[in-house]
Amino acid sequence: MVGGGQGAFIGAVHRIAAQLDNAYELVCGAFSSNPEKSKASGEMLGLSPERVYATYQELYEKEKQLPEDQRVQVISIVTPNHVHFEPAKLALESGFHVILDKPMTYSLEEALELQEVADRTGKLFCLTHTYTGYPMVKEARQVVASGKLGKIRKVYVEYPQGWLSTFEEGGENKQASWRTNPEQSGKAGGMGDIGTHAFNLAEYVTGLEVTQLCADINIVVEGRKLDDDGAAFLRFNNGASGVLMATQIAAGEENNVKIRVYGEKGGLEWQQEIANTLQVKWLDKPTEVYRTGGGYTSSFAQHNTRTPAGHPEGYLEAFANLYRNFALCVTATLAGEAPEPEWQDYPGIKEGVRGMAFIEHVIASGKSDKKWIDFTI
Amino acid sequence: MVGGGQGAFIGAVHRIAAQLDNAYELVCGAFSSNPEKSKASGEMLGLSPERVYATYQELYEKEKQLPEDQRVQVISIVTPNHVHFEPAKLALESGFHVILDKPMTYSLEEALELQEVADRTGKLFCLTHTYTGYPMVKEARQVVASGKLGKIRKVYVEYPQGWLSTFEEGGENKQASWRTNPEQSGKAGGMGDIGTHAFNLAEYVTGLEVTQLCADINIVVEGRKLDDDGAAFLRFNNGASGVLMATQIAAGEENNVKIRVYGEKGGLEWQQEIANTLQVKWLDKPTEVYRTGGGYTSSFAQHNTRTPAGHPEGYLEAFANLYRNFALCVTATLAGEAPEPEWQDYPGIKEGVRGMAFIEHVIASGKSDKKWIDFTI
Amino acid sequence: MVGGGQGAFIGAVHRIAAQLDNAYELVCGAFSSNPEKSKASGEMLGLSPERVYATYQELYEKEKQLPEDQRVQVISIVTPNHVHFEPAKLALESGFHVILDKPMTYSLEEALELQEVADRTGKLFCLTHTYTGYPMVKEARQVVASGKLGKIRKVYVEYPQGWLSTFEEGGENKQASWRTNPEQSGKAGGMGDIGTHAFNLAEYVTGLEVTQLCADINIVVEGRKLDDDGAAFLRFNNGASGVLMATQIAAGEENNVKIRVYGEKGGLEWQQEIANTLQVKWLDKPTEVYRTGGGYTSSFAQHNTRTPAGHPEGYLEAFANLYRNFALCVTATLAGEAPEPEWQDYPGIKEGVRGMAFIEHVIASGKSDKKWIDFTI
Amino acid sequence: MVGGGQGAFIGAVHRIAAQLDNAYELVCGAFSSNPEKSKASGEMLGLSPERVYATYQELYEKEKQLPEDQRVQVISIVTPNHVHFEPAKLALESGFHVILDKPMTYSLEEALELQEVADRTGKLFCLTHTYTGYPMVKEARQVVASGKLGKIRKVYVEYPQGWLSTFEEGGENKQASWRTNPEQSGKAGGMGDIGTHAFNLAEYVTGLEVTQLCADINIVVEGRKLDDDGAAFLRFNNGASGVLMATQIAAGEENNVKIRVYGEKGGLEWQQEIANTLQVKWLDKPTEVYRTGGGYTSSFAQHNTRTPAGHPEGYLEAFANLYRNFALCVTATLAGEAPEPEWQDYPGIKEGVRGMAFIEHVIASGKSDKKWIDFTI
Repeated sequence: MVGGGQGAFIGAVHRIAAQLDNAYELVCGAFSSNPEKSKASGEMLGLSPERVYATYQELYEKEKQLPEDQRVQVISIVTPNHVHFEPAKLALESGFHVILDKPMTYSLEEALELQEVADRTGKLFCLTHTYTGYPMVKEARQVVASGKLGKIRKVYVEYPQGWLSTFEEGGENKQASWRTNPEQSGKAGGMGDIGTHAFNLAEYVTGLEVTQLCADINIVVEGRKLDDDGAAFLRFNNGASGVLMATQIAAGEENNVKIRVYGEKGGLEWQQEIANTLQVKWLDKPTEVYRTGGGYTSSFAQHNTRTPAGHPEGYLEAFANLYRNFALCVTATLAGEAPEPEWQDYPGIKEGVRGMAFIEHVIASGKSDKKWIDFTI
Repeated sequence: MVGGGQGAFIGAVHRIAAQLDNAYELVCGAFSSNPEKSKASGEMLGLSPERVYATYQELYEKEKQLPEDQRVQVISIVTPNHVHFEPAKLALESGFHVILDKPMTYSLEEALELQEVADRTGKLFCLTHTYTGYPMVKEARQVVASGKLGKIRKVYVEYPQGWLSTFEEGGENKQASWRTNPEQSGKAGGMGDIGTHAFNLAEYVTGLEVTQLCADINIVVEGRKLDDDGAAFLRFNNGASGVLMATQIAAGEENNVKIRVYGEKGGLEWQQEIANTLQVKWLDKPTEVYRTGGGYTSSFAQHNTRTPAGHPEGYLEAFANLYRNFALCVTATLAGEAPEPEWQDYPGIKEGVRGMAFIEHVIASGKSDKKWIDFTI
Repeated sequence: MVGGGQGAFIGAVHRIAAQLDNAYELVCGAFSSNPEKSKASGEMLGLSPERVYATYQELYEKEKQLPEDQRVQVISIVTPNHVHFEPAKLALESGFHVILDKPMTYSLEEALELQEVADRTGKLFCLTHTYTGYPMVKEARQVVASGKLGKIRKVYVEYPQGWLSTFEEGGENKQASWRTNPEQSGKAGGMGDIGTHAFNLAEYVTGLEVTQLCADINIVVEGRKLDDDGAAFLRFNNGASGVLMATQIAAGEENNVKIRVYGEKGGLEWQQEIANTLQVKWLDKPTEVYRTGGGYTSSFAQHNTRTPAGHPEGYLEAFANLYRNFALCVTATLAGEAPEPEWQDYPGIKEGVRGMAFIEHVIASGKSDKKWIDFTI
Repeated sequence: MVGGGQGAFIGAVHRIAAQLDNAYELVCGAFSSNPEKSKASGEMLGLSPERVYATYQELYEKEKQLPEDQRVQVISIVTPNHVHFEPAKLALESGFHVILDKPMTYSLEEALELQEVADRTGKLFCLTHTYTGYPMVKEARQVVASGKLGKIRKVYVEYPQGWLSTFEEGGENKQASWRTNPEQSGKAGGMGDIGTHAFNLAEYVTGLEVTQLCADINIVVEGRKLDDDGAAFLRFNNGASGVLMATQIAAGEENNVKIRVYGEKGGLEWQQEIANTLQVKWLDKPTEVYRTGGGYTSSFAQHNTRTPAGHPEGYLEAFANLYRNFALCVTATLAGEAPEPEWQDYPGIKEGVRGMAFIEHVIASGKSDKKWIDFTI
């Protein structure tokens, strides 16, 4: 693991996700840019001191030299955005598979270069767009793909949060500090942090690609340096239109990711607050309530479900699904076997590049007087 | 009553709304442009045949000649949009108070002229933006007005419907026919029919005014002549921003009007499907669930509530609240008394003019390559 | 109308319900045992002074003497329980049809006698068990009757309220006073007031009859004279079992009537707080959400629906459905025609007798050391 | 681990729960009464073959002989009910701390003897009543304990499931087979499997103890040998009353555990399907919605929460909370330190004995003609 030392939120989440299905063992780490902190974190996590490294460079270098059956296989990188590209690139080039937190890089340029590195090295790559790990999000994608809803016409995707309603970065909140700092976060604040999740969710569920967008991007809280609120009209490659809303200043909201998709014959709705429910709506018959664990759900949903219907699975399980599917693919690949389609259903390089392109375009559109801009990569 | 003959949806709703509180008696009507139909409707409604008229002109003319204590006092006009202006204008000029279905007129020009007529005649005027009649919508406005949420920053308002997902106007559906016909409906289809409701709701609840907008307007169903889908970014006169979504092609949705408003300290959420609930959210304490009939609700909510908490009031009661408040104001005015603030809280000429301006601007923006257009009247 | 003078809750509800569909006109009344109050109420309601009577006896006597086309046809009785039997009996014997508030009488003996009078006079009779007027409750009954759920096995019905959590009857609350007073209310407090609603709902939806019960009846608030809380195990005539819960001391609850019914193949759930939704659950497929106004609903639901799907109908509309169906039956009967099955679907004498028997048995069981008592009439 | 070999549901859940917080390492096991199966399970789980044992007796014997720093510390027992007592007793007597699945034993006698053993050996003991591990259930207990609701008066607790609606035990379903088999399950079927959860939840949240009960116990599905449906009236030691409902034949229900508690001033409601929400209701102010992760929640809730508000935590996290708290207490004890009150808040021997007493009494009451029976141990 690179990053994720004491006090980091997402590092702990990654560790739980990795452990949950017993598919990974944490064997080494470079947990902080501060070697003392890295050491302390490694100790806390029960690692052998000799496998807690001062830098990721040292980690890769030393681990490469270990015998194959002892060496780390997958590098999980959970640093702030500006420290994504270099460690990920070097990890791939050092022969490791990589799991990387989103957004993929600091800039689209880096993303495109990382894509090239991944293609060249042939190493596997997973980007942790958590929401696509929920069984009912997977089901949503399958419902759309089945054609039951007819041609998709409209997409509403939203991600309202309230935690940046005040000038959090003025205080001790480390999360708030780096996420609102252009030097660490990149061109976008909220649009990078949560807008990319919404964008990814829309493309994942519909199987469509955005081709044009028009954005309204705002900095609401005084003194903030990056966007904390925004919305975008979307146009998709099949002619459908959409609205994306992402805000961090919706005071009183937690993390209420939601997507609605409408086709010619019906629609669907999924919301993280009731994550185990997928509503499938019809023009002329009652709404159907699909539930995690339902015997009628697709193989994609069932493969990502651990407990019988009625035992709520949550955010950590969704996260763990990414890790587990990635592990299944890594293991299959090592064994020279073809992974199942259900295993391969995790976000990767392509999703990362599109996410970075979303950031570039949505921020550019926010500054433009022109209504529509083309979404090109 | 003008319009609302047999088979008309909204005419029947108006009659129930008028009757519900026993504040009105239906005494005369010109129910259809077809005199036979008008007569038949009048008979069905139990009116004296001599007070069922062939035209609204005849109605006004004859009623004016009746003794004051027999003559109709309030004219309710429930015709399609292109037959709003003339009958409303003539009614006001004939000395009657007027209740008119929304959108106010066929064009903004007509609206401005009607405003002038209303000002000149001094007659009272009510426009039936139903959603502002719900007790919990009134409560929402009071919560914002109280300042508890702090300065308002963000507004999301949406009105997804699915009933025009197919080419309904190709068949017998009279509702679908006129609402999608530019000659009867005006410049806008869905934006006029339901977009204006969403717009009115946003301005009503926040007490703010839109100053700029940027719209994406679509005709989704092949063969349709007017918009059936759209969205707009909004900017308000206090600096807040918003997103408005209104669509008639969200297959599987009924009539799911919803508004969310966020200020510096908290937010609120109301949705017609759970109309008797208002969620008030806070940055640092539990969400509060306000309920119709709650002893803690404002005088505005309580005045518009008929039953104790726990007895759901619905759409017809919300509609009836407009009628009832208008009756209270008419009666007070006739008696030379000042109406209470709670009674005056119904939509009128100003809301009608702004609604027509919304239609003009949102359609113009939909056709423009420029991002923002100023909302001016 | 008998009873329902100024300040009475349920009298006003009855009047709105009667008016809502324009099927009744209020023509006369004896609104209070106090002639002055009766007069004042009649005036407020806009009645001719000569048709506001000092007593119900006078009302019946005088109205009988009016020409048939002027005379009142239906008597609505909305007095406290101890003044149900005499006015209802005399009304029937005077040749009027009767609408009576529940529970039907003060005692089971009275109920049985009233049944005999109704049978003898042939006059129509409606008991206002409001909850059976909701379209989705009617749909629930039809779903069970269709056999789709298989044989019914389990019924949960509940009616939690909180308004009697404190010693309300110690103050000015007139509602609380008579409802907790054995001389006015009868043998039961909460079990009569709301327990009978729950009981009626269970028998109505399932089409079954209770044959045995075992009750736990409590007086929770100190000083109260009648039960304010209770529960009963039920056994039905097809072998199904059930649990009924009704309480008035569930602090913080409004009027949260709910019923769940389970058969061999599926179940259903309806709750007044989301009155326009009926959940139909299945062993092996997604839950279906039936909605008021849905094109797929039964003729019984559709007949009792006024507005398109998505326009919430509430308590007053449910109440009005009882009045409207009764009016349709009265009118058909007067015209010598057979009423439609959908019109006849309102609670009547039989339901009233069973409700009074429920009160007798549930109170008796509450006092008994024996577990089960037979429910016999 | 004792039991929980391939194909067992709850064994896998225990393993995830143990791993999730990295507080346990699975080091040895006797996974099945069939040594081959045990071996295969151990292999699958990546254990050293020499620490996969044929029997639990062998496991304890061999592990005791290992050096203290290698030896297993906590035994987790996840066998069917009839194989709880012996392995648990022997584990305690062999010097191990024990985690045991519920219900604690096959009979109350065994439970009382196990209590005696635990007292005597001083070893720690945890019984996995999962629902008490949810942060919002812990919050519920704290809300009651704070006295804010006033004296508790009424408790409704329910656990409707549908999975035994058909004669599942007639087929291959191993879960169904042992849970409906008196020789493996004990005196009760559903009352033991899920009724004990409901009972424990009621006592845990209220802090009260049941002193009397009256039950209606049924076998609904033909051919079944143990109860699959039941309900009980409860009386608590402070005078409050309650209703407990547990059924396995509510076709279409998943695992919908729910509790409602009402005091003099307010009430609360928690339901597993929306596990991260606790509704706190008040007589005279809006309902408050407490949420997992809310800054206003108690130290007990926060200690059991891993992610910020808005990231749903589910069943596995609730289960993991039991394991984690037990680990914290074991570690503290080993270190000679006093565990924090938050850590000690897991179900133990006392809860196990009361659960077994519940089974005895509820089944006895189900067979009795007498209404109330005393709940004594």
